[in-house]
Amino acid sequence: MSRISSRGIHSTLAEKVDFHKIHFCAIIWYHLEDSGLELAVTLNDNPTDPLYRQLYEGLREAILSGRLPPGRKLPSSRNLARQLNVSRNTVTSAYSELEAEGYLSGLHGSGTYVSWELPEERPLEVATGGAPGDRCSGQFPRPMRWQQLSSGAGLGADLDVPRGLPYDFHPGQGAWDVFPVGTWRRLLARQWRRGWREIMDYGDPGGYRPLREEVAAFLGRSRAVRCDPSQVVIVNGTQQALDLLARVLLAPGDLVGIEEPGYRSARMLFASHGATLFPVPVDQEGLVVDRLRGSGARLALVSPSHQFPTGSVLSLPRRLSLLSWARSEGGLVVEDDYDSGFRFEGRPLASLQGLDDSGSVVYLGSFSRLLLPALRVGYAVLPPDLVRPFQDAKELTDRQTPILEQQLLAGFLGEGHFERHLRRMRLLYRERRRTLVDALQERLDGVVEVMGAEAGMHLMVRLLVQVDEAELVKRAASLGVAVYPAAPYYLGPSPGPALVLGYASMSEERIREGVERLARALRR
Amino acid sequence: MSRISSRGIHSTLAEKVDFHKIHFCAIIWYHLEDSGLELAVTLNDNPTDPLYRQLYEGLREAILSGRLPPGRKLPSSRNLARQLNVSRNTVTSAYSELEAEGYLSGLHGSGTYVSWELPEERPLEVATGGAPGDRCSGQFPRPMRWQQLSSGAGLGADLDVPRGLPYDFHPGQGAWDVFPVGTWRRLLARQWRRGWREIMDYGDPGGYRPLREEVAAFLGRSRAVRCDPSQVVIVNGTQQALDLLARVLLAPGDLVGIEEPGYRSARMLFASHGATLFPVPVDQEGLVVDRLRGSGARLALVSPSHQFPTGSVLSLPRRLSLLSWARSEGGLVVEDDYDSGFRFEGRPLASLQGLDDSGSVVYLGSFSRLLLPALRVGYAVLPPDLVRPFQDAKELTDRQTPILEQQLLAGFLGEGHFERHLRRMRLLYRERRRTLVDALQERLDGVVEVMGAEAGMHLMVRLLVQVDEAELVKRAASLGVAVYPAAPYYLGPSPGPALVLGYASMSEERIREGVERLARALRR
Repeated sequence: MSRISSRGIHSTLAEKVDFHKIHFCAIIWYHLEDSGLELAVTLNDNPTDPLYRQLYEGLREAILSGRLPPGRKLPSSRNLARQLNVSRNTVTSAYSELEAEGYLSGLHGSGTYVSWELPEERPLEVATGGAPGDRCSGQFPRPMRWQQLSSGAGLGADLDVPRGLPYDFHPGQGAWDVFPVGTWRRLLARQWRRGWREIMDYGDPGGYRPLREEVAAFLGRSRAVRCDPSQVVIVNGTQQALDLLARVLLAPGDLVGIEEPGYRSARMLFASHGATLFPVPVDQEGLVVDRLRGSGARLALVSPSHQFPTGSVLSLPRRLSLLSWARSEGGLVVEDDYDSGFRFEGRPLASLQGLDDSGSVVYLGSFSRLLLPALRVGYAVLPPDLVRPFQDAKELTDRQTPILEQQLLAGFLGEGHFERHLRRMRLLYRERRRTLVDALQERLDGVVEVMGAEAGMHLMVRLLVQVDEAELVKRAASLGVAVYPAAPYYLGPSPGPALVLGYASMSEERIREGVERLARALRR
Repeated sequence: MSRISSRGIHSTLAEKVDFHKIHFCAIIWYHLEDSGLELAVTLNDNPTDPLYRQLYEGLREAILSGRLPPGRKLPSSRNLARQLNVSRNTVTSAYSELEAEGYLSGLHGSGTYVSWELPEERPLEVATGGAPGDRCSGQFPRPMRWQQLSSGAGLGADLDVPRGLPYDFHPGQGAWDVFPVGTWRRLLARQWRRGWREIMDYGDPGGYRPLREEVAAFLGRSRAVRCDPSQVVIVNGTQQALDLLARVLLAPGDLVGIEEPGYRSARMLFASHGATLFPVPVDQEGLVVDRLRGSGARLALVSPSHQFPTGSVLSLPRRLSLLSWARSEGGLVVEDDYDSGFRFEGRPLASLQGLDDSGSVVYLGSFSRLLLPALRVGYAVLPPDLVRPFQDAKELTDRQTPILEQQLLAGFLGEGHFERHLRRMRLLYRERRRTLVDALQERLDGVVEVMGAEAGMHLMVRLLVQVDEAELVKRAASLGVAVYPAAPYYLGPSPGPALVLGYASMSEERIREGVERLARALRR
């Protein structure tokens, strides 16, 4: 077995896992009761990977990374076996091997300890953050759990694609410059005149009431979401909504169903709460719900309107199947209604929330992608039982979302500006999408296959030729084009080379020229 | 066909649809172009469900739920037929039936409108999601850990003191009405003119660079904080800063030193991360640091400038002792420099951060209490090693603090408005404090002992007579006075009856009258 690399657990996972062959694979965090430690172990049921070996690796990696420091006492084999739900033999085998190699020392009668002198240099890269010689190194900060999942870079390091290139197909960028600045200014001026009382004090942590009412009405009209305004809680965006849900609903070790491939920030967030990620594949009809059945997942996060990054739309049978999963297995569906505002073909499907009648859906939306990322205002529509705990968690975390933005948005929605803006954007994005699809067909026919172009602000192209994604990204960058490889969105190995291409922020001319250059990069 | 139930679209769908038999079923949103409305209709191709009937039901449900309000004009039948891609006959049949039943009124030549008087009561339940006895009850949510600590009430339930009383000594209220609205408006207008580029995109999760620079400079001048702007991370307030620190630094079971008595929200926050709270007593010199020694606490939270709620100021020997604790035991000091802006007597002491030379202090501050609570902007000054993980946690949680507020604050600080404002507030609060102290001495001499009045926006009074805090609060409330008992700020039992009295938001006249009434309540 290969040595654990400095990239840690994730690379281990990627090397070992084949989702077609195995039934179960997960990164698991164990809070070791008697040591106060948490331990990450990758366990799968691949018969070529004996469990004791997997445990051995998990412990070894924890020792090398400093998470299990020298001198630390380990749980007894009996105790650890019970906690991990494996046979005691598995634990003693792992302990023995680690002892034989010098990672552990057993003191008869007093337990097993991490050796003071480790057999090899502790790899520097694993202990993140620390400067040499600093008192804090190795002690603060403890690496966060999600750092073990990512390749060590921060969340913003965006997949190693260079920034600032002239032809940037970034999937997260929109045509922010079309934002109706004049209208916004007018609303703001009016808000000033109206007075300051409301914004001078702490407000309702659930959000500004008129905005909650406007959001409820808008979602009712446009997405068939059925809710009372009191079920709408204003948050700082989808990411915060996920964070609050994780706080309220998840305990370490809880299984969370996520889309594979899927949204990286959500994955990292759940992992940071100690959840075990359960990747569920996505095909042309969206999430393969059957794979979720019997998994024991406590919640499942889906982006049904335009899945990120594949762009597939969750079909109606799958929607109903997902709701029936939630009902029958007591799970919660978290519906990130990402990109629902921009659908270009076919008929929009009902939100899961609107289809549900068992209180099993939390609906999430955000003004960031529809209006302006800098706004930092989003909303969660919660089953009545969840409203209070969610709102309490919001208050505990940061008290409330700034009220001025909420007031302006309330006016923006209430006076119909928002829907007008969406219509305008929809037309614009439709044109840009058409331009991109046409250009791809013209310049790269037979080389790429376009997927997920019915809606949203990006599409995905599968590369039909043998090409290394990273190499292609580099070559495109050298021609001034930023394209985004699909592989990082997979928790496991990706099925083949693919790119995610956002078009929303690019003029048609730039799109055409960008594709032209991408074709050149591919031809090389 | 059954009448549409009050539960609306979903029940219709669930009753009618068998997915093994049909090819197509969907709830469809139509954006009705000429009305600016979006409309959801359930359509399927089940031959027993004529299309006109489905359209009828969709419109009826929209009318009953208020999404199509009375008086709203509907699209012409020709137009709607085109938009829905159905025959015009289908639309006219649906319209006719709705008109016959009184839902619509047709005015010849001027179109079709939703009736002002609907044939049946709008069912109230339509809007709400779940009914009592809902599946969710008892399953979600899992109680959060901090809920086990608090008495079950939400965080905002503020100690059972009635709200809205005319003489409110709330310790969290400031003279927000003195905020320089005109200056703020001017900065805002200028920011608009400058353009939108910066606020149109996701920003640096660490914060708006010019604000980080202004904060670093301000803290250097006023609090002897020594830091580079890159060590300043902008957050949504102190509460969020604590949350991010807990994420980065704490594992479940870690010991956290907290002040006893102390700030409740911080306590609950740490508990919500699974930390074990280690209460350290506070006396006239602030935290009794010796009690922290040997505790194994990983971090200690202190409010050295004006301890909440006792108002004591951490003495210099204690400050040095606390830093030596951090150095020798590898702990981290979290300095909540609460109320440091308002010191009335004696010399301001240097911040712990400025005294520290071992990278053991995180300094926290906020504009909420100094300027406006609704702003939701605060900052953390971190040891260099912690900056990146803290910033990553910020990005993971909610990406960034809204940028517009940050830009305005950068100008507000940079042009000296902030310090001018602080000076003004300091004078105002000093007067109010003097009024309160004088009134207490005059009216309640020998009955109360005043503590912690050197700084800040509140003081504490120990009651020298036998009295039940809760009973007193009630009696005072009946006389229109809100006073705040000290007991809830203690994790353990409180040493004796005491009240926390905020004075910052009250005029001198009100303060005098409030004390007068409090004296009456005490005399009973």
